Amino acid sequence: MTQSSAREPADLNDAGLRTRAVAAARGDAPFDTLIVNGTLVDMVTGELRAADIGIVGPLIASVHPAGTRLDAAEIIDISGGFVSPGLIDTHMHIESSMVTPATYANAVLPRGVTTIVWDPHEFGNVHGVTGVRFAADAAKMSPLRMILLVPSCVPSAPGLELNGADFDAIVIADLLSWPEIGGIAEVMNMRGVINRDPRMSAIVQAGLASEKLICGHARGLNGSDLAAFMAAGVSSDHELVSSADLMEKLRAGIAIELRGSHDHLLPEFVDALNQLGHLPQTITLCTDDVFPDDLATGGGLDDVVRRLVRYGLKPEWGLRAATLNAAQRLGRSDLGLVAAGRRADIAVFDNLTDLKARIVIANGVVVAKDGRMLADITSADTSVLEHSMKITPLATDDFRVASSEKTVRIATIDQPRFTRWGEADADVRDGFVVPPEGTALIAVGHRHGRSDSRPRVGFLRGWGEWRGAFANTVSHDSHNLTVFGSDPADMALAANAVIAAGGGMAVASNGMIKAILPLPLSGLVSGAPLDDVARDFAGIRAAMDEIVEWQPPYLVFKACFGATLACNAGPHQTDRGIADVETGTLLESPILART
Amino acid sequence: MTQSSAREPADLNDAGLRTRAVAAARGDAPFDTLIVNGTLVDMVTGELRAADIGIVGPLIASVHPAGTRLDAAEIIDISGGFVSPGLIDTHMHIESSMVTPATYANAVLPRGVTTIVWDPHEFGNVHGVTGVRFAADAAKMSPLRMILLVPSCVPSAPGLELNGADFDAIVIADLLSWPEIGGIAEVMNMRGVINRDPRMSAIVQAGLASEKLICGHARGLNGSDLAAFMAAGVSSDHELVSSADLMEKLRAGIAIELRGSHDHLLPEFVDALNQLGHLPQTITLCTDDVFPDDLATGGGLDDVVRRLVRYGLKPEWGLRAATLNAAQRLGRSDLGLVAAGRRADIAVFDNLTDLKARIVIANGVVVAKDGRMLADITSADTSVLEHSMKITPLATDDFRVASSEKTVRIATIDQPRFTRWGEADADVRDGFVVPPEGTALIAVGHRHGRSDSRPRVGFLRGWGEWRGAFANTVSHDSHNLTVFGSDPADMALAANAVIAAGGGMAVASNGMIKAILPLPLSGLVSGAPLDDVARDFAGIRAAMDEIVEWQPPYLVFKACFGATLACNAGPHQTDRGIADVETGTLLESPILART
Repeated sequence: MTQSSAREPADLNDAGLRTRAVAAARGDAPFDTLIVNGTLVDMVTGELRAADIGIVGPLIASVHPAGTRLDAAEIIDISGGFVSPGLIDTHMHIESSMVTPATYANAVLPRGVTTIVWDPHEFGNVHGVTGVRFAADAAKMSPLRMILLVPSCVPSAPGLELNGADFDAIVIADLLSWPEIGGIAEVMNMRGVINRDPRMSAIVQAGLASEKLICGHARGLNGSDLAAFMAAGVSSDHELVSSADLMEKLRAGIAIELRGSHDHLLPEFVDALNQLGHLPQTITLCTDDVFPDDLATGGGLDDVVRRLVRYGLKPEWGLRAATLNAAQRLGRSDLGLVAAGRRADIAVFDNLTDLKARIVIANGVVVAKDGRMLADITSADTSVLEHSMKITPLATDDFRVASSEKTVRIATIDQPRFTRWGEADADVRDGFVVPPEGTALIAVGHRHGRSDSRPRVGFLRGWGEWRGAFANTVSHDSHNLTVFGSDPADMALAANAVIAAGGGMAVASNGMIKAILPLPLSGLVSGAPLDDVARDFAGIRAAMDEIVEWQPPYLVFKACFGATLACNAGPHQTDRGIADVETGTLLESPILART
Repeated sequence: MTQSSAREPADLNDAGLRTRAVAAARGDAPFDTLIVNGTLVDMVTGELRAADIGIVGPLIASVHPAGTRLDAAEIIDISGGFVSPGLIDTHMHIESSMVTPATYANAVLPRGVTTIVWDPHEFGNVHGVTGVRFAADAAKMSPLRMILLVPSCVPSAPGLELNGADFDAIVIADLLSWPEIGGIAEVMNMRGVINRDPRMSAIVQAGLASEKLICGHARGLNGSDLAAFMAAGVSSDHELVSSADLMEKLRAGIAIELRGSHDHLLPEFVDALNQLGHLPQTITLCTDDVFPDDLATGGGLDDVVRRLVRYGLKPEWGLRAATLNAAQRLGRSDLGLVAAGRRADIAVFDNLTDLKARIVIANGVVVAKDGRMLADITSADTSVLEHSMKITPLATDDFRVASSEKTVRIATIDQPRFTRWGEADADVRDGFVVPPEGTALIAVGHRHGRSDSRPRVGFLRGWGEWRGAFANTVSHDSHNLTVFGSDPADMALAANAVIAAGGGMAVASNGMIKAILPLPLSGLVSGAPLDDVARDFAGIRAAMDEIVEWQPPYLVFKACFGATLACNAGPHQTDRGIADVETGTLLESPILART
């Protein structure tokens, strides 16, 4: 049994290319490109050593002692620079950055990221196979290598929510047959796998049959649950919650995609690895989700390495995890090393602290210098992503819970992140439930045209005191229109602003829109330049700060986007009601029956 | 581009098996087999830790805290034992052990070796595709996993020797399409690759097109030659000659198959790795060639690990190189770790010094206990290997060099191992050249029926003083009948004894056969039990000690078997004459033209 990721077009196997590369390596022909005067970060030995690199076409032809060769069509002097293989992000969602694939590539390639393993889970949930096809088309045009995975859980909580599509094992087996597809993406219906639910089992079996990667989402799994998850065939995880979790999963032998999106955990991961005394070869790095303003200012996987180094990881360990380890995990023998015969994906960093990329080479081509792309990246046709908001404007009363009683007992969703069930008594006034003191409202309206779109409304407790409303269509994993707030009028205002924008996010308070970020592509992504998206997103963040007080470490937004994540344990509001995957509960209304 | 080795039959992908394994991992069903009270050698973290292992069918279902589960059809208590993944030998030739594949498996499986990467180069050179088909049939029947590679250099020195078959790129591409085949074996025609010789280039290109492994033989290659070899697509080497060579090749990024057959080099390899301070993940271990008596007394890859540990390598490093690193090199995500979801190939060692295997599990089945197989291994039909000696008995004069001159100038082959050209004057008496003082004779007779079989005779200088003759058909790489000695009568006697035996080796002196080892299968291998072959081979060694004095570290036999290795630099006698691959020279007769 092998598990390896997508095949590259067989460009490196061309006989003429190999003949040219061998001749250049031998010294009988010049290189196309020669990188001189740099210090190579040796991913095998861990050494920093002087070495020059000769490139022919997309191939590294030679890594040789500094100054021994000067024959090349182009010589690039990188005095003072450090040479690393291009960085490989082993798990991410472009959609989280709210920009197109071309814009994402434009953002991270100049930073030294040359390969991403992209789970187009969000495009899949909104558009189905059409969304994955868009991703594959974008990947084909991209100088940033995009290894696509098939979203495994579309929908992520079948029966508990309604998204835009349904990928059963037959659809997934078909998608796995595409050459662009490297495997199955984060299998997040963990209980489905562990309990051998027929649908999830058939999906995992399709992955096994394809002999491609089966990547996991093993949040909170340990002991017998983790063993069962792995015994089913899932072989990686990025959902680490502590250094103890990291150590248990390393010991279990599951491949680690150490994730940068939860920065507060990185210092303890670094401490655990330093204490272990060596970098296990099963550790890779990933970003998972990067917000647009973080992408613009911090970067992609480069920023994960940078922060790990800042927290005390040896730079060569961080880079090895991001290169050689990743290539081995992906079964890609052409990537991850600066060595003759491998693909010329190379990042030259100014130093090993800032990891600022001076030169980036992808497939042998210098694509970026000093943080800027040398040529524009052509965007795939995004028209298939338009018109995804199949929902009509909403009224204030759509954000209220009707009742003919005088008082009711209601179910509440307590605490963000690790939600718990609660109950409360509530009065009814003018035919609607009055939210009890200390509660806020959440409303989720189906927006994919597969059912009625009238929102289901729930009550949140311990989610802060809201002085306005926040509407968005990013809300995981079904990307339905999700609205938080205390005032139904503000909620309707924010919701209708998002509907009018074709998707996106809006903050309203006191009857006014305070900030808006239109995401007219799939309701997830903007066709605008990253700086514009980042600016508008920062505007949303600032507006949110005005209407609700929450504290890090866990950011407001993530909790909002995850409030509907019905595949996770605990109660979650969806377009179908309040769902609890562990008990299989689905309450269409928060009003509890009188007992 | 991926490079990975042969596919296992998709036995691990069976849905019913996975369902059973998941249920057992979860705790809802018993394991088939449960290993308790052992210490796991954790290949990821490097820790030694208490852990029990639950197995279902061929799958590891669970690795869990000691004593937490006791429900299993069979419980194996291994108190005091150390659990490792089964050892993986990344490059070897069964033929070197002069026994059948079944006998080899019988010898190494009980020692904890569960996978070998077998280059049936010798069977290929004698029988062509039929030899490789025999190997594939043997592999299919074997509980020892045999990943086959296609011999890349049949013959190894085209035009300079004549073997039994010819594998051009078309034949090799066909062999690469077999599911049993994991790639191309040690590409040893290094100059052919580096100089982009059309035949070798086409063979390497066939390997690239197959997306399977392309393994190397990079003896003495460094600098631009090594880069050119790798740029062509070759990705491993086992021909390390020093710690400096090891370090250069690690830095070059070529995968290392650290070889046990050259024991004198192992201490310096260990020192180099200890000085580096970590075990690079690109280092694997291999045996390459193990003589039958060494196999019987020392073992296979287990003995390589054992000696590395004796020379100062941490046991967990040695085992990691032999397991996880090897599995990663081979692209086999089912092997190399004791982890849920991986294949249950497990060795339990008594301790980490002797590495004596107490229990060996292959594919979930306990195949050996306390060094003994629990069931006989069925042998493949060896009849296709019979009758390979297509040569008639020889006369004394066949081992003389005729001349009508009175004196002649002759070419000599000076020094074993790294041979050099020499010249000498010689008298002629009774129509035959009188070997000058300090020379011995080598004679090579074609035995594959593709040409006349009269031996070509050459003169060795610095190869010791011979008091008898040694004949053998193992002689690499064409396995022609090769005879060493000083007395043509003894040489004929030894040669005819080997011919009568259907192949093998014999030592003669003073007109008597002193020792014989019949190898009637392919002239390479015996169908007899290992102990018998080992005993007879030890008899040959002892008899050799009586007729010639050579000193280790480099053993007499290896130099004899390699004296005809025309793919290596320097002069080598073959059935066609004295060949020198570097200059393309082929002297049919050692008598030099008068100038």
